[in-house]
Amino acid sequence: MATELYDLTAPVFTRGLKALSAILDKAVAHAEETGADAESYLALRLAPDMHPLSKQVQIACDGSKLCVARLSGVDAPVNEDSETTIVELQARIASTLDFIGSVPRDAIDGQEERDVVLKFPGGEWPFKGQGYVVGFALPNVFFHLSTAYGLLRQAGVPIGKRDFLGVPG
Amino acid sequence: MATELYDLTAPVFTRGLKALSAILDKAVAHAEETGADAESYLALRLAPDMHPLSKQVQIACDGSKLCVARLSGVDAPVNEDSETTIVELQARIASTLDFIGSVPRDAIDGQEERDVVLKFPGGEWPFKGQGYVVGFALPNVFFHLSTAYGLLRQAGVPIGKRDFLGVPG
Repeated sequence: MATELYDLTAPVFTRGLKALSAILDKAVAHAEETGADAESYLALRLAPDMHPLSKQVQIACDGSKLCVARLSGVDAPVNEDSETTIVELQARIASTLDFIGSVPRDAIDGQEERDVVLKFPGGEWPFKGQGYVVGFALPNVFFHLSTAYGLLRQAGVPIGKRDFLGVPG
Repeated sequence: MATELYDLTAPVFTRGLKALSAILDKAVAHAEETGADAESYLALRLAPDMHPLSKQVQIACDGSKLCVARLSGVDAPVNEDSETTIVELQARIASTLDFIGSVPRDAIDGQEERDVVLKFPGGEWPFKGQGYVVGFALPNVFFHLSTAYGLLRQAGVPIGKRDFLGVPG
């Protein structure tokens, strides 16, 4: 039967982003319980030259959004990365989920051989659709979801692996 | 065309574990350059109740090994999780790569509907093969690969996203 490209992307990103949203809710609750400033979590970084939590959330959203857009050919909404609060980041996640949900399965299934060329400051990374999903989009989104989770674990937010994995659907 | 289950698992884990091995080599080189004790990295944790780097490597190996074993029905080698040095962890990664490489494609392709039941202290998590790969095995392995990377970034090892992603193949 094999796995259709839609099943490898849209529902996987949706589950991951919903899990991220729930984790951010737990972070807010933890801050309230401990008297911490939840917004201060957004500046946390694992290393001085790594992105802070706010950017990890933005990249997790963009990685998901752009994968769905590149495979389907549907234009993705433009985001300015201007979010500075958890409420704004939750809205960013919600709008990303809306976009993913708006793209129909038949726009993604069958795009395994579609050319997807990623452009970096140092050059280009040419993929076909399938290799892009398996070799870049999924690892990249999971990287940023994991890093966001790790930052909040490091800040003491009581979350566990089940929070990261989300609810299988 | 869709994606065969083998292409979703064995080569993805292989690339991730090879990237992890190369990252550990860079950690050793960084320790030598800075006069640090590379073995001390193995005790690093993002939070007191998270696993240390050594265990992150072991779980990344086990998650990969067990996925291939559960889908194929081929018995996986047993590991005692007794590694205490980077050299031993590199051998663990190498033996995991050998096992993954020993399982033929036709033992994994077509196993999308195979029952895979994960047992936890709190109960069971029943999956079919495809849902297990997409909803558990891939996120879980990427989580531990990302966490290992994050711990070494936090320790100052000069690595970047390309080191995490490895070489698409």
